[in-house]
This record gives sequence, C-alpha cells and structure tokens, in this order.
Amino acid sequence: MGLRVLDVGPGWSKASASHREDLTQPAGIMHGGVISSLIDTGIAHALMMTDRLTELRREGGALVSVDLRVKFIRPVSQGTIFCDAKIVRLGRQIVHAEAVVTSEDGKEVARGDAIYMAVPQSQIERQIEQN
Amino acid sequence: MGLRVLDVGPGWSKASASHREDLTQPAGIMHGGVISSLIDTGIAHALMMTDRLTELRREGGALVSVDLRVKFIRPVSQGTIFCDAKIVRLGRQIVHAEAVVTSEDGKEVARGDAIYMAVPQSQIERQIEQN
Amino acid sequence: MGLRVLDVGPGWSKASASHREDLTQPAGIMHGGVISSLIDTGIAHALMMTDRLTELRREGGALVSVDLRVKFIRPVSQGTIFCDAKIVRLGRQIVHAEAVVTSEDGKEVARGDAIYMAVPQSQIERQIEQN
Amino acid sequence: MGLRVLDVGPGWSKASASHREDLTQPAGIMHGGVISSLIDTGIAHALMMTDRLTELRREGGALVSVDLRVKFIRPVSQGTIFCDAKIVRLGRQIVHAEAVVTSEDGKEVARGDAIYMAVPQSQIERQIEQN
Repeated sequence: MGLRVLDVGPGWSKASASHREDLTQPAGIMHGGVISSLIDTGIAHALMMTDRLTELRREGGALVSVDLRVKFIRPVSQGTIFCDAKIVRLGRQIVHAEAVVTSEDGKEVARGDAIYMAVPQSQIERQIEQN
Repeated sequence: MGLRVLDVGPGWSKASASHREDLTQPAGIMHGGVISSLIDTGIAHALMMTDRLTELRREGGALVSVDLRVKFIRPVSQGTIFCDAKIVRLGRQIVHAEAVVTSEDGKEVARGDAIYMAVPQSQIERQIEQN
Repeated sequence: MGLRVLDVGPGWSKASASHREDLTQPAGIMHGGVISSLIDTGIAHALMMTDRLTELRREGGALVSVDLRVKFIRPVSQGTIFCDAKIVRLGRQIVHAEAVVTSEDGKEVARGDAIYMAVPQSQIERQIEQN
Repeated sequence: MGLRVLDVGPGWSKASASHREDLTQPAGIMHGGVISSLIDTGIAHALMMTDRLTELRREGGALVSVDLRVKFIRPVSQGTIFCDAKIVRLGRQIVHAEAVVTSEDGKEVARGDAIYMAVPQSQIERQIEQN
C-alpha cells in the first residue's frame, strides 16, 4: 500500500503513504482506507518504543486496541502524505494517542486518534479461552 | 489482506476477512488494521447500490468519507470474521452507516461507523484546486 | 434540562428529554447538548444495575468514562425524545455501551456510544494523588 | 452547571467549569457530563464569530451538529477546569473543531472534537417538514 515508517521514538512516529492510481476512488481522491492504515500504523509505532510497552511485553502482556477514529478533513488527489503520531496520555491502564496527516504542501488532510488498553498476560489467556 | 465482499444490496453489505499468521500481533491477536479495513470496505459497499450514490455519480459528484470509527470489542485469535454493514440514515447531505463484525461462533468482535458527505461535482473541482 | 429516567434494568435503560423553547437553537432545532446529556445519562443508568458495577463498588472501585460519542442523525424541532441505552459488551476491564435516540414518531434522531473502564480502588487513589 | 465562557474570537474560545460537590460521582471524580457540556459549549462559541456562520445566518441557514466526541483522559477531583476550543478546518460544507480541557495545574483532563455541517435555509425547512 506504499506505507513507510520514516522515524520512530518513544511516544512518537513519522510515517508516509504515497498516492498511486490504483488507490484512488472514481473521483480521483485518495481512498480513505489508505489514510486509516497510515494513521493506524503511525500510532502503533509511536507506542512501540515506550517503557510501558516494554514492561508489559516482558511480563507477557500487550497493548490492545480499544478504539480507532479517523476524521477526513481535506480530499487528497496527488503526491505523498505524512503522518505525525504521538502519545497524548500514557496511563497504566489506558493509552491515548493522536495523529495528524498532512499533504506535501503542509495542509491537514486527516486527523486520527486511538485508545489502547494494557492487558496483562493472565487476561490475554482468559480472553482467548473465553472467546 | 484476505478481504472478501460476500453480498451487496442497496444500503447493506456482507464481507469477510480471514485470519492469517502474518496478520497477527505478537500476542496472537488479529491486527486491528484488518478489522478496520474490513469495516471500511463493508460500509463502502453498502453505499454502492443506493439511489443517492447513483444520482450523485450521474451528476459527476461523489460520496466522500468524513469520519470512520472502529471499536475493538473482543480479541480474535483464529478463523474468519464477518462484517455486516448497513446505512442508518441516508440524508441528502450526510450519510450515516454502521457495521458489526462477528467471529465464526457469532460473538461480536468489533463495531464501526462512518459518516459520508454528498459532494456535487462543482465542489469536488473546487476542493481539488484549493487543496 | 427535563431529563427523565423512565426504566432501568441490568444492562439497559430508557430515558427521555422534552423539548422546551429555551433549549432550542436559533433555527428552532433542539440543542445538541440536550441529546448528549440524554445519551450520557441513559448509558450511565444502563450500567447501574449490572453485577460488574456492584462488584467493583463493593471493593471500592468504580466504572470511569473513557469515551463518549454522539452522532446527530436528524434535527428535532418539537416534542419529547426517547433514549434506549444498552450494554454491548461487559468485559472485566472495558465496557462498551450504545444508545439510540428516537423522536415521538419513532424516527432516529441520534446515536451514541460510550466506553467505560473498570478502575479498582487502589488505582483510583493513585490517580487522584498523581493528578 | 457552573459553565463560563471566558473569551471568544473567530475560530476559538476559552471556557471553564467549576467542580462542585453535587456534580461528583461516588468516587469523588467530576462527572463526565460536565466535561462534555463544557466541550460542547466551548466549540459552539468557537464557531460563533466566524464569517462562515455569519454568512449562513444572513441567508437563514445554520451550522448543525453532526458529531460530538469526548475522550476522558484523567479523572478530576477538585477545582476549576478550562476548555480551549478551536476550529481545525472550516470548509464550505463541513466544519471540524477540537477542544482540550485542562485542570488548574495544567494537566490534560479531556479532549473533544466536533463536526458541524452548513445547512442552507431551504434544507432546514425540508428537514423539519420531513421529520
């Protein structure tokens, strides 16, 4: 899909997606799914290097998605789009993150946010069983 | 990504996604991005056969995404998931749609909703120029 | 504000709000804030009689709001509106609830959803201190 | 409810709400409804002095709420909270606005966003009739 993670730090990431003809809708506008995937990927990478995730994984736990939301602000018809994701609040149980997507000329194209929940190993096992 | 549209009518669709090892997160849980794409695709197909979209397209207009939201209700660790999407309100300017994703054993895995806006041709041209 | 809780059971509630002149916007449309409050109240009452909340409270814990969302589907210009709220998923850590608001003639006016998190007493004390 | 609009300009507003005992939940945490109302009010005031709204009203139209979302980031147990609302994108058809709520010591308590739609007079009349 042409997603690239450009840079990552603890609590933030930069990623991009390139516009290709096969990703466009009939009206020549970039498909919403590309923007959603870019935001989803960007936020996941912003979480990746945090101490909280390292700590959880060491104990066999995980950060699990609770909610993802994307607001499409401007249509994009060409070029590369960039996603800046950052953690807004890293609580022990709940993590809030946000992302802003801009076009090549710096205009806002979309905004997204996600909520993640810290799940300890015991809870993961129980959920998979109960499911 | 293994997305399949199973059936479509005016205002509704049924679609599925299959769980593959390469789509899983470390904890063995299906990646949120697959579920988001399934919901996005399902809702887009529910819109496809509506009179409103046919009318808009005949005039050179389009339905454009304003908002997409996904709530992850239960982790999925195996098998196929199914998405039922339907239009909740088809207004002249705004369309609201919703989707429910269930696992093979009928449990709810995720819920999603989307808002679309009807954009006439003149508006599309202006937005692309101004962008 | 004219909110009334009409009926409550474990996992669901029915509530209403009446349209008054002082709650209307210039265009004669019921103010969004009334609908948001009705949904917020309805969902809170749907949680009230659940075993999970009883259990949490016995231990000094609470269900805390993580997220509230309201989609305004149709304008309402007169009469009483009704809110049906129900719990969609009552997990140990996360609770998902939804609400549908209808007008007197049964048309959908709004839809809302909320995410709550179960917080044990120890966690509440820590959060209040750290805050 | 103790809401106060402190300052307003075209595209932004500052508002506050004060914590009172009767607005608290059992656990001593400010009720989510107060925060939602503060965000709703703050965003409505950010729209109030914009040229787009003036123009719409002159023609008998209105800005109508499509969507309101509130994310509760930290519990608040005392004092006054402040809401900074701003318009993120003022399109001809759709307006996106966001708000950040902070406590007295500057910590983020909540984030919210809203989508409004410009409705011309003709459309308002039709919707009220059809409803």
